[in-house]
Amino acid sequence: MRFGLFGSAQAKRGGAANVDSGSGFREFVDYNMEAEQLGYHSTFIVEHHFTGYGQISATLNLLTWIGARTSTLRLGTAVMVLPWHNPILLAEQAATIDLLSQGRLDLGIGKGYRFNEFKGFGIPMEEAETRFEECVEVMLKSWTSEEPFTHKGKHWTFEDVIVEPPTFQKPHPALWMGAGSPGSIKRVAERGMSLLLDQFAPHSTIIERVALFKTECETVGRTFDPMQVGVARALYICDTPEEKERVLAARMSSKAKQAELAQRPDGQNKASIMAYDDTRETAEAGALFGTVDEIIAKLQYLKSGGVEYVLLNLGAAGPAGRDITRRFAKEILPALK
Amino acid sequence: MRFGLFGSAQAKRGGAANVDSGSGFREFVDYNMEAEQLGYHSTFIVEHHFTGYGQISATLNLLTWIGARTSTLRLGTAVMVLPWHNPILLAEQAATIDLLSQGRLDLGIGKGYRFNEFKGFGIPMEEAETRFEECVEVMLKSWTSEEPFTHKGKHWTFEDVIVEPPTFQKPHPALWMGAGSPGSIKRVAERGMSLLLDQFAPHSTIIERVALFKTECETVGRTFDPMQVGVARALYICDTPEEKERVLAARMSSKAKQAELAQRPDGQNKASIMAYDDTRETAEAGALFGTVDEIIAKLQYLKSGGVEYVLLNLGAAGPAGRDITRRFAKEILPALK
Repeated sequence: MRFGLFGSAQAKRGGAANVDSGSGFREFVDYNMEAEQLGYHSTFIVEHHFTGYGQISATLNLLTWIGARTSTLRLGTAVMVLPWHNPILLAEQAATIDLLSQGRLDLGIGKGYRFNEFKGFGIPMEEAETRFEECVEVMLKSWTSEEPFTHKGKHWTFEDVIVEPPTFQKPHPALWMGAGSPGSIKRVAERGMSLLLDQFAPHSTIIERVALFKTECETVGRTFDPMQVGVARALYICDTPEEKERVLAARMSSKAKQAELAQRPDGQNKASIMAYDDTRETAEAGALFGTVDEIIAKLQYLKSGGVEYVLLNLGAAGPAGRDITRRFAKEILPALK
Repeated sequence: MRFGLFGSAQAKRGGAANVDSGSGFREFVDYNMEAEQLGYHSTFIVEHHFTGYGQISATLNLLTWIGARTSTLRLGTAVMVLPWHNPILLAEQAATIDLLSQGRLDLGIGKGYRFNEFKGFGIPMEEAETRFEECVEVMLKSWTSEEPFTHKGKHWTFEDVIVEPPTFQKPHPALWMGAGSPGSIKRVAERGMSLLLDQFAPHSTIIERVALFKTECETVGRTFDPMQVGVARALYICDTPEEKERVLAARMSSKAKQAELAQRPDGQNKASIMAYDDTRETAEAGALFGTVDEIIAKLQYLKSGGVEYVLLNLGAAGPAGRDITRRFAKEILPALK
């Protein structure tokens, strides 16, 4: 099995004048540099806006800084939300980090699910799908067209453009897409993209989804590669039952906060993040919380179900996250490599 | 006097399959790392699109990589072309590099002058001014507003947004603006911005512009700081007269190529880059081409006219640029520091 990190740095606005708001970013960079040394394969970071609690917004920029400070760590996004971006500018930014890092970019993309972000950017949530599709189309053309092209779409017009720089990976960086429902998993397989599975679904559901993705890949004549499925899982090594209850509570409250940012005024947000309730049972069924032995057993269960690549979210651990990253590398990783 | 670098890396599309298109970027990064060691104060890089010869497009991303590999070098743009950018995304990207570099960003901004870029992005050239102004307004609000704000402008709508991360420099990174005409120099002074003077105007014209900027600063009650005026100048140490003729020819041909990309079909581009012809005399009057002693004399002339900060463009030097950067630091810089 291989392991990556999945998460966000934090740089909050406001607070006392003497608060160093950049320390969260710089610690996150250090954390990723150490993770590379500890044997982690990748880092995947989120893109979010207007949260008021300082999630990463300029995702490719922070990832570029991390890229310059590391040498083997794969640089992932989970995910860039395409409706916010000019497709040409995003293609250029992605190509630049791919070129500078000599092909380490894994570009996770999505159509967005948080109402407060659509509202903030003044983009109707109903346009998410068409904006996503148009952005993918233009990015692919930008990366692969050696001749100037013209694009006249629903949301964007570009005339007679040749997009530079070229990407390092050919024909372009791998695209990763989140999917949960059978229909959307099938489409990821058909499009030749890699699959990101979310951190909320129970382990048993994840195994079903991996099996479905394998079948769908084979249906379209694509060789299934388990490294093309990244499973996001929250992890915490709990040395006492009290610790476990504390992180379960933190997970529930973080889930509730994200649901609040995502929810539409009409309560009709159907995104996969909304599909699980906030009970203790649900929180535990999809997380890697427990003793070292319990976590190894859960990972072996996932492995038996075809999961080979896990993206660890240590957000619930707070400042203890870094210590857990080290303990995981020493006490758990050797049992599963 | 202080000296920075002004220029672009190159990463071209196409060519043979075995061509490493990223080498131009990586050499540029090395070059900047060495420049920091040699005593250069800053690097200013351009933003251009669709040139077909690989100028930097994702300017803040390349600058972020350079930032991660250096520790004192100021990180400048000359200039970010605001009409291409979503003001919120650009504010977030700029804040991220400013935060990560602990306040080393100098954000040069402009409204664009190349017709082929406006055409490529599908933006009418007539909107350059209003897009520029609206972008500045939203970026300033994004950086300074501690409470959510709403913006309903001509080109953009944002609702109830709080923009993160915060900048490191307070209230925000210095904004630099190119200007040539008396009216635009006056406006830069009034806006409290720093001034970029172009690489084509003769030295004597530069001195007049610095004097005008000083007067305009004093008129609005602003303390004139010569470090807030960056003068872009092409430089080449010529050991023989033949070498000088060669770089003058290179300068004229590069100027002609840029004018071609900038020109409108109606021939009516009035941008300052279009204001100088391509004669040998004009090429020489605004460049620092000559022997070591001749260059020192030209720089002393500029210094006597109030110029304290020069941004050196070594583009005409080609692969020799790096060697000239070293020679300048050893043979010329000590005489002027």
